[in-house]
Amino acid sequence: MKKFFSVADVDNLKGIVSEALTLKADPHAHESLGKHKMLGLVFLNPSLRTRLSTQKAGMNLGMNVMVMNMDKDGWALETRDGVIMNGTTVEHIREAAAVMGEYCDILGLRSFPTLKDKEADYSEDLFNKFIKYCAVPVVSLESATRHPLQSLTDLITISEYKKTEKPKVVLAWAPHVKALPQAVPNSFAEWMSRAQAEGLVDFTIAQPAGYELSEEFTEGAQITTNLDEALQGADFVYVKNWSSYKEYGAVYPVQENWLMDNEKLKLTNDAKVMHCLPVRRDLELSSEILDGPNSLVIKEASNRVWAAQVVLKRMLEELRDS
Amino acid sequence: MKKFFSVADVDNLKGIVSEALTLKADPHAHESLGKHKMLGLVFLNPSLRTRLSTQKAGMNLGMNVMVMNMDKDGWALETRDGVIMNGTTVEHIREAAAVMGEYCDILGLRSFPTLKDKEADYSEDLFNKFIKYCAVPVVSLESATRHPLQSLTDLITISEYKKTEKPKVVLAWAPHVKALPQAVPNSFAEWMSRAQAEGLVDFTIAQPAGYELSEEFTEGAQITTNLDEALQGADFVYVKNWSSYKEYGAVYPVQENWLMDNEKLKLTNDAKVMHCLPVRRDLELSSEILDGPNSLVIKEASNRVWAAQVVLKRMLEELRDS
Amino acid sequence: MKKFFSVADVDNLKGIVSEALTLKADPHAHESLGKHKMLGLVFLNPSLRTRLSTQKAGMNLGMNVMVMNMDKDGWALETRDGVIMNGTTVEHIREAAAVMGEYCDILGLRSFPTLKDKEADYSEDLFNKFIKYCAVPVVSLESATRHPLQSLTDLITISEYKKTEKPKVVLAWAPHVKALPQAVPNSFAEWMSRAQAEGLVDFTIAQPAGYELSEEFTEGAQITTNLDEALQGADFVYVKNWSSYKEYGAVYPVQENWLMDNEKLKLTNDAKVMHCLPVRRDLELSSEILDGPNSLVIKEASNRVWAAQVVLKRMLEELRDS
Repeated sequence: MKKFFSVADVDNLKGIVSEALTLKADPHAHESLGKHKMLGLVFLNPSLRTRLSTQKAGMNLGMNVMVMNMDKDGWALETRDGVIMNGTTVEHIREAAAVMGEYCDILGLRSFPTLKDKEADYSEDLFNKFIKYCAVPVVSLESATRHPLQSLTDLITISEYKKTEKPKVVLAWAPHVKALPQAVPNSFAEWMSRAQAEGLVDFTIAQPAGYELSEEFTEGAQITTNLDEALQGADFVYVKNWSSYKEYGAVYPVQENWLMDNEKLKLTNDAKVMHCLPVRRDLELSSEILDGPNSLVIKEASNRVWAAQVVLKRMLEELRDS
Repeated sequence: MKKFFSVADVDNLKGIVSEALTLKADPHAHESLGKHKMLGLVFLNPSLRTRLSTQKAGMNLGMNVMVMNMDKDGWALETRDGVIMNGTTVEHIREAAAVMGEYCDILGLRSFPTLKDKEADYSEDLFNKFIKYCAVPVVSLESATRHPLQSLTDLITISEYKKTEKPKVVLAWAPHVKALPQAVPNSFAEWMSRAQAEGLVDFTIAQPAGYELSEEFTEGAQITTNLDEALQGADFVYVKNWSSYKEYGAVYPVQENWLMDNEKLKLTNDAKVMHCLPVRRDLELSSEILDGPNSLVIKEASNRVWAAQVVLKRMLEELRDS
Repeated sequence: MKKFFSVADVDNLKGIVSEALTLKADPHAHESLGKHKMLGLVFLNPSLRTRLSTQKAGMNLGMNVMVMNMDKDGWALETRDGVIMNGTTVEHIREAAAVMGEYCDILGLRSFPTLKDKEADYSEDLFNKFIKYCAVPVVSLESATRHPLQSLTDLITISEYKKTEKPKVVLAWAPHVKALPQAVPNSFAEWMSRAQAEGLVDFTIAQPAGYELSEEFTEGAQITTNLDEALQGADFVYVKNWSSYKEYGAVYPVQENWLMDNEKLKLTNDAKVMHCLPVRRDLELSSEILDGPNSLVIKEASNRVWAAQVVLKRMLEELRDS
């Protein structure tokens, strides 16, 4: 594996989930694989779970790890080509990425979207340039449009807790006070659509009108604006807010109740409830669910380690064999 | 040891001091104990000594260490229950603590008081919730009301440098320009009161009227508003500013001279002078003392490693044996 | 080696370059040398290359590494002696340095100049005090007037890529929008002047009138205000902006074209182009050069590891043997 940016970078979902669960059962089995290898984690935005779980995954594999808070400890990055750098950006991504690629065997990068310029965000220009210029394998720690380590984690978690061969999985939009990126729901939709195509799940997306995700991520999914209908028979409900894709970054007033609570849970097949965290309690998801037996959110977050570790392991193996 | 939050978490002061000094004599003797164990250090506030000495203690025990500047690199925490999170806090401590507990075998947490709301600060609500929800052993890296690693360090240092069986120890209030927490003096008083009860020291507190500490920390201590009297025959003087407990967070004008200097030192039994650092030179403590032969402040700071290491060692042993 | 602050701390340039290149060929050959040794990297200012390359160098030698962002995660430092600390500085460098020296076997420090007070900056007061009070070997990670790890890197890089025994090296001033320190050019000049004295290079400095460096760094160098003349026959061009030393920190309008581009490159002996990075594209140095075959900037940045590693290795050997 040379990059881990979207579901397209994985050839077989069942295979990678199974390998991740094998690592979970024996986390230190491959600690010689990463010996003398350097993992660099570059953050342009805040991070808790990704920061810690990916560090831990690297250490479990015997790697050395360096964390770089580019926004605070380094220099403001320029990403545009052909501009005279006489403004506030101090370093071009061409140099920054190339230099970090010299110091590290594998790099991780987190970069949020602007939510102002749809075309720029969805071009993934910054990420693509980083991948191009650093010249080493790159793990996405969340980009403008995707959060693949989260989605792989979610698939692992669904595989662990499913009670039927092909569970019904619902991605349910939830309210929020801020305009949030589409990266997590895009990515979840992309992975679940693929999982559906591989016969692993049955996938439905429920969101209010105006909050439809970009079609490139939702192929094959059932899509509805009726949450109650979507929840019928659901085995897993993945709760998440996002801002509008169509009217990019917009937040519309929503009259109906989209807060996921026990009342709504009754409509499901005693569904397990998931969320990528951080979650706004009693705005997106009720405390009664979060503190109750149906919540998987902590186990899900815990699985972030194994998602990161299986990706790093595959990259290390490719480095070793190449 | 499942938590290290106050002196009540230690059964025998002499025993833990002796064990810490054994570690000091051979820092790497237990480096297999922490193998494959993760120490997570979570900071909601700045830290120099605690940050570095606790990292080093973990590494000496063979642990992996991750540092999380929650305030800067992560998300603003909500600690109240039963509120709809539609404000500026992004993540509830229930989830944040639980998730970090999944990634780490032992957690450390630093969190300063508000100095606005006495009841909230002294309830140690944030800390108690962190301990409750993270589900792994927790080391206090300073909480709203206590700084136990500092106090254990101080007891170690007094044990190392005492010239008599039962030295006279004086906690002496000192001037400052800011309103500081009571955590360090509370904690020092709590530990020295206990040490006095165990026959290890004779303990006196001197502070101006209005600066009395909460009685829960000072049981058995001699308490006076007369510094010169307190210093008579002192073997150790522990200098520290704090704001008022009674009129919570207040700073009163003090007429008399409470700056510790060589003139005051003459009243003592050639006392060793201690301070937790950082210290405001010539405001709290004179440069002549800090740069002179009676100062223990650097040796004291150096001992922070062994205090942290003995606590982590006991926690690791309990994890191993459980 | 007890400190690495200027070229004066190295006895033989050829020897240290050769040792660095040996480390580059086998980075992990000395990983037992740093076992149980702690490297502390203290940053008062931002850093990308220095931060990562020095961490990596320490890890290659088997050291444990702790990074301290003093400005953000710690306390504001006082450096003046004899002042009552009743202002905004929280900790004196005497204590901060001494304490960090207790926790670390080797310390690195980065501290930029103010560019306001020439005398204070050029006295290197902060750095000298840090060295004095920490009591352990100190590596400069860039000080007010010098950046010796960069200059050693540059000499290593020139040695690797030179096509003649004694290449012509030109330090060429370049435009910028901000007032930058003289540390990098001072240091480069100091090292190249010494290299010239040892017969390794032929050294010329070109800068507009008013931008002359302090003479203490340029002994023996050819100095000119005519860039085109300087570039004649150059084998290496080291491009860098700096503000005025004479009228300290001033930035003058410059009429002639000092941007290094392909047109100027034609004047040289097909020179390799160097820059310490970060570089302002098309302001200091043209994109066509940076993306073309004559640029060494990424290989130069990559060599930062070996410069740091040879310095740390010599310090560790002295610790071992003392």
